[in-house]
Amino acid sequence: MTERMFIRGNEAVGWGALNAGCDGFFGYPITPQNEIPEWFAREFPKRGRVFVQSQDETGSINMLYGGAAAGFRVITSTSGPGWGLMQEGMSHIATAELPCVVVLVQRGGPGAGSVRHAQMDYLSVTRGGGQGGYKNIVLAPSSVQEVHDLVQLAFYLADTYRNPVVVLSDGIMGLIMESLEVKTIEFGPLPEKTWALRGRENQKDGMTRLIHSAPGVTPSRGMTYVGFLEYLDQKYKQMADAEVRYEMYQAEEADLLLVSYGYPSRVSKEAIKMARSQGLKVGLIRPITLWPFPTRIIREKAEQGCRFLVVEDSLGQMIDDVTIAVQGQTDVALLGIQARHLPTDGGMILPGRVLQEIRRLL
Amino acid sequence: MTERMFIRGNEAVGWGALNAGCDGFFGYPITPQNEIPEWFAREFPKRGRVFVQSQDETGSINMLYGGAAAGFRVITSTSGPGWGLMQEGMSHIATAELPCVVVLVQRGGPGAGSVRHAQMDYLSVTRGGGQGGYKNIVLAPSSVQEVHDLVQLAFYLADTYRNPVVVLSDGIMGLIMESLEVKTIEFGPLPEKTWALRGRENQKDGMTRLIHSAPGVTPSRGMTYVGFLEYLDQKYKQMADAEVRYEMYQAEEADLLLVSYGYPSRVSKEAIKMARSQGLKVGLIRPITLWPFPTRIIREKAEQGCRFLVVEDSLGQMIDDVTIAVQGQTDVALLGIQARHLPTDGGMILPGRVLQEIRRLL
Amino acid sequence: MTERMFIRGNEAVGWGALNAGCDGFFGYPITPQNEIPEWFAREFPKRGRVFVQSQDETGSINMLYGGAAAGFRVITSTSGPGWGLMQEGMSHIATAELPCVVVLVQRGGPGAGSVRHAQMDYLSVTRGGGQGGYKNIVLAPSSVQEVHDLVQLAFYLADTYRNPVVVLSDGIMGLIMESLEVKTIEFGPLPEKTWALRGRENQKDGMTRLIHSAPGVTPSRGMTYVGFLEYLDQKYKQMADAEVRYEMYQAEEADLLLVSYGYPSRVSKEAIKMARSQGLKVGLIRPITLWPFPTRIIREKAEQGCRFLVVEDSLGQMIDDVTIAVQGQTDVALLGIQARHLPTDGGMILPGRVLQEIRRLL
Amino acid sequence: MTERMFIRGNEAVGWGALNAGCDGFFGYPITPQNEIPEWFAREFPKRGRVFVQSQDETGSINMLYGGAAAGFRVITSTSGPGWGLMQEGMSHIATAELPCVVVLVQRGGPGAGSVRHAQMDYLSVTRGGGQGGYKNIVLAPSSVQEVHDLVQLAFYLADTYRNPVVVLSDGIMGLIMESLEVKTIEFGPLPEKTWALRGRENQKDGMTRLIHSAPGVTPSRGMTYVGFLEYLDQKYKQMADAEVRYEMYQAEEADLLLVSYGYPSRVSKEAIKMARSQGLKVGLIRPITLWPFPTRIIREKAEQGCRFLVVEDSLGQMIDDVTIAVQGQTDVALLGIQARHLPTDGGMILPGRVLQEIRRLL
Repeated sequence: MTERMFIRGNEAVGWGALNAGCDGFFGYPITPQNEIPEWFAREFPKRGRVFVQSQDETGSINMLYGGAAAGFRVITSTSGPGWGLMQEGMSHIATAELPCVVVLVQRGGPGAGSVRHAQMDYLSVTRGGGQGGYKNIVLAPSSVQEVHDLVQLAFYLADTYRNPVVVLSDGIMGLIMESLEVKTIEFGPLPEKTWALRGRENQKDGMTRLIHSAPGVTPSRGMTYVGFLEYLDQKYKQMADAEVRYEMYQAEEADLLLVSYGYPSRVSKEAIKMARSQGLKVGLIRPITLWPFPTRIIREKAEQGCRFLVVEDSLGQMIDDVTIAVQGQTDVALLGIQARHLPTDGGMILPGRVLQEIRRLL
Repeated sequence: MTERMFIRGNEAVGWGALNAGCDGFFGYPITPQNEIPEWFAREFPKRGRVFVQSQDETGSINMLYGGAAAGFRVITSTSGPGWGLMQEGMSHIATAELPCVVVLVQRGGPGAGSVRHAQMDYLSVTRGGGQGGYKNIVLAPSSVQEVHDLVQLAFYLADTYRNPVVVLSDGIMGLIMESLEVKTIEFGPLPEKTWALRGRENQKDGMTRLIHSAPGVTPSRGMTYVGFLEYLDQKYKQMADAEVRYEMYQAEEADLLLVSYGYPSRVSKEAIKMARSQGLKVGLIRPITLWPFPTRIIREKAEQGCRFLVVEDSLGQMIDDVTIAVQGQTDVALLGIQARHLPTDGGMILPGRVLQEIRRLL
Repeated sequence: MTERMFIRGNEAVGWGALNAGCDGFFGYPITPQNEIPEWFAREFPKRGRVFVQSQDETGSINMLYGGAAAGFRVITSTSGPGWGLMQEGMSHIATAELPCVVVLVQRGGPGAGSVRHAQMDYLSVTRGGGQGGYKNIVLAPSSVQEVHDLVQLAFYLADTYRNPVVVLSDGIMGLIMESLEVKTIEFGPLPEKTWALRGRENQKDGMTRLIHSAPGVTPSRGMTYVGFLEYLDQKYKQMADAEVRYEMYQAEEADLLLVSYGYPSRVSKEAIKMARSQGLKVGLIRPITLWPFPTRIIREKAEQGCRFLVVEDSLGQMIDDVTIAVQGQTDVALLGIQARHLPTDGGMILPGRVLQEIRRLL
Repeated sequence: MTERMFIRGNEAVGWGALNAGCDGFFGYPITPQNEIPEWFAREFPKRGRVFVQSQDETGSINMLYGGAAAGFRVITSTSGPGWGLMQEGMSHIATAELPCVVVLVQRGGPGAGSVRHAQMDYLSVTRGGGQGGYKNIVLAPSSVQEVHDLVQLAFYLADTYRNPVVVLSDGIMGLIMESLEVKTIEFGPLPEKTWALRGRENQKDGMTRLIHSAPGVTPSRGMTYVGFLEYLDQKYKQMADAEVRYEMYQAEEADLLLVSYGYPSRVSKEAIKMARSQGLKVGLIRPITLWPFPTRIIREKAEQGCRFLVVEDSLGQMIDDVTIAVQGQTDVALLGIQARHLPTDGGMILPGRVLQEIRRLL
């Protein structure tokens, strides 16, 4: 199926999941991502697929645990406070090595925050929150098409590594309308889910036995706990090595590189166009994977003397990863949503403000 | 009251809270911190203070919200999965600017993990988990006496900044028995809690009005959302500037500095004693506050050419903060719980193993 | 579709619901009714219908509320403790005048009781439990065929009266295997569900409006509270007048009439056959509706001088309704599960024991 | 302590519980009983007793289960929907044979109903709701003094029979203000709670053993399930025989007897005074225990030819018990809250309306 539509980023989540062969959506409403559960409620049942509105977000994430354990491709979506409620479940799912996709459409935090656009969940999404020690790939779309494409990639990576994958959107990306080409993307073969639970059978001794049980949950692997951690550590290193994705924009021969993801990366490109027209050597590195982070390319650019400006809709979170990458070799500046950074209070970071910062730094 | 006891770290939490004038404990059992709720259940009601076993950890953290809003000194304790369940509430409490203390006795994660000692929650505790964007001071004791003292300090800092404070212990620190001097520590004056909720009153127009209401919750401050974030940002910067605490041990004229907190810092000191006796110039920087992290002293030492070895009971989490501090000026090595780091699988990191790593690096 | 099968009573629930055009099942496992959710989990999704395992029984009943409000035919099943958890929701659904079907497969109560057969929920099912004041039709099958048929009737009556209907089964009826003719039963036309919620639309004034909203919920009817109660009272009287169903067996010229429902009515028939062969004039009135109860026919028989023996697998609950009907005109005896009534402890009420009681009374 | 106050019925619950030596209150707010938790929140902690606001009513009832199991005198209060949520727990507590007190301040049902006065929960309270098969004593006060006195009696009867006891109040009784003499009432000695849980101890074999464990929960009694039911049945019969309480008012030589409890019994007395002044022979039987119901005295009066008028603030619930008692020997009429019974819609049943009905019947 290939079809062209003009729709919102939140709706592109649904079309991406459908084309990825997703079997079921489990979620609970919260602004600014309600178009996602609404899409699944409308489109999935009539295609014989599952939509369940759970009692709350702790329910959603545990339904994902169950669906994934049975070998199905499952997805949920939420925003800030719902993400907070999913922390315990995310950690359990990662430990059980189950593949699933969580779409997090960021709103203003902390707390109940605001339903406004924001990028306040970067640290909790990239560091393995809740009871820690796990990692998950984080994909950050910056267009409606990319929302659709990265949701499909998320299912593929989840199955590849038997690990939850987060698609990190935001209130602007969710509501913006753009042209979308709906299609199935082929990523290559995947191993059969031999570990999926298929039921149980009675045995002669009166006990029941799980059929095709996952070796997943910690104590059943015949590993010690530290052995299991070592195994996870190797898996996470493998993910970190193989899955870094980013976009370079006007980055050749730049004196200043912006680092930005999601909607601010769109704003940054506009500012770069204006700056280039004024002869300023400025470009953009746009991380598509936030974990694993494109540390190497940033370090290379730092070694070449490039300076950096992180543009993010927060008080400064991704700047930690840029700082780790740069290792003190050049400066790293921040354009965030501190009031002093914004021309008018409460608004978005706009291209003019980014240009102003570029000019100040160069 | 000054009294000398020989007790476990978990029990020292109780005596510390009692001497801090704590009014109530709200919690749910989980290993390896059960001695804490047991202590409060036994000691608090007979002193006219409150102990409640909640229905689950989401209950505990929201009871803290309520108790703190009413102006009381309140505390909870938990371990990994309980911490996961508290993520949403923590973010709400930080946003409402309410003071409370959470004691997190780390167990092996991720997921249900193991009831073994570990330090796997460092990143989720220091980065503001759940729906992100907030910060909280994190205190890391390394002796039973320090558990007792830092719990008292935690209450003081919570009230000073109207912010939750986490005391980050672990399964070893919780169960180890040591001599404790129980006493009230004076930290200085605190502002009156003029914001505490005292009730409500009926008004002439038929409406009810909160009495001495907190100005706390976001929309009631007469600030815009971005203005509130800016305000929070200033508060967090103030905390970061004023509250860094650390211990230096044999750090003068050291070629190699270990960085370690909690029980591994005890192990590290033993290894340093052995190394020094062999003429190796090695010392320790022990962060007492994990957030704010002692970045400056580490950076100074890095600028002096010191190399670093992070010793932590995880696959590597605090190493991020050391790396940010060092800025690539010298090497940062890790001795974690990867199987290759441990002489015998499943055990603690032992002094001999640390010494071996010191010798390998020097 | 007409098909003949040899299956359990619990499975007949599924085939009955399917033939009634049921759209969705929502439930949580509990013995002795697990074959019901298992049937729906297996058969419904592949037919494009909905199966959801809820987080608990309070979830199930509220999912029924939601599904029914949207105009769908929805069903749940449970046993004792689950029924306890559904009490609040049942009362809300009855107040909102929403049609749905609850299959209650009784187990031994009270409390967690026993997973054995029993008839201990008669009073709570027939009196409008939880927050009281409502009524619901209760249908009591005594064969696998009747389970199948009464489930279909239940959906019809639920839609007719916009009211929940309970099918009251028990552990024996659920597990017994019998021949079943699966078929769709026609009960006649039903009014269109003009009240079903179909969504909402934005209005010019910026407000949203429910589309085809139910006039159902109390305050929206333009009735006062007492007016609404009066309206409910009239509806319940109408149900009580029109829907009484019962079976007479050998009841003509009987001196003694047994009153029994569910599996004990099967046992009673066996005993009556034996008694008749011995020349004893005994028969059976088997209520098919427990509410409304067949009061009139019992009163008529009492006026003719008939005596009564209530046979039920409890300590005596339906006997209240027989006593109300008889109005003291003749004797009403009970054969329940008091130890003195049972030949061997823990067993079923058996035909021989019933015969013995018949002989004692005549 | 004896003291005279002028207070509301809801507050008299607190003083009664305090004088009964109640150790703890566990509840959740709901109109029209909020003065009860507010009283306990204010008065209990400062006396070293426990007040906990639970997360919801399923929490409250299970906290009662725990507190009672440990041998403490515990109480909760609620209204309609909260009572619905407590149904499962009530059944478990009755099965475990644990003493506790539930104060149910009726509001208009069914569903969320209205916060108005009503008597709609009679049937669910007197029949053993939820998963059925149990019984509990129900006490119905009709003055503020009686609220206070019956709460104390409730604790005594709960301990006597190791069974939950319900005090059934209503929105009028809860809010009316009257003079109250606060005092401790002596009911006589009670057996020691040898069954109360006091903790657990480690044993040589590595297992833990409960200390002074209750023999309560079903399977631990060394009884079969039917044996346990028989035992419960005997206990309930004993309660039914020994604990019937009622008040007779002007009942000698009456042609018509009103039967009424709670606030309508106050109204009925006013109407009887007016009727007697007009020479009408009318009196009142006021049940103080609704279960066990004063069946015998009503039957005796029916045998003497008395006619009956049930006055209750519902559509007719207690009338079932009067009908069972009268056994068809005389007429039983109902004055309920059907619109045709009320002079003005939505109001209380007033003395004039009762008098009118008395005149119509005589």
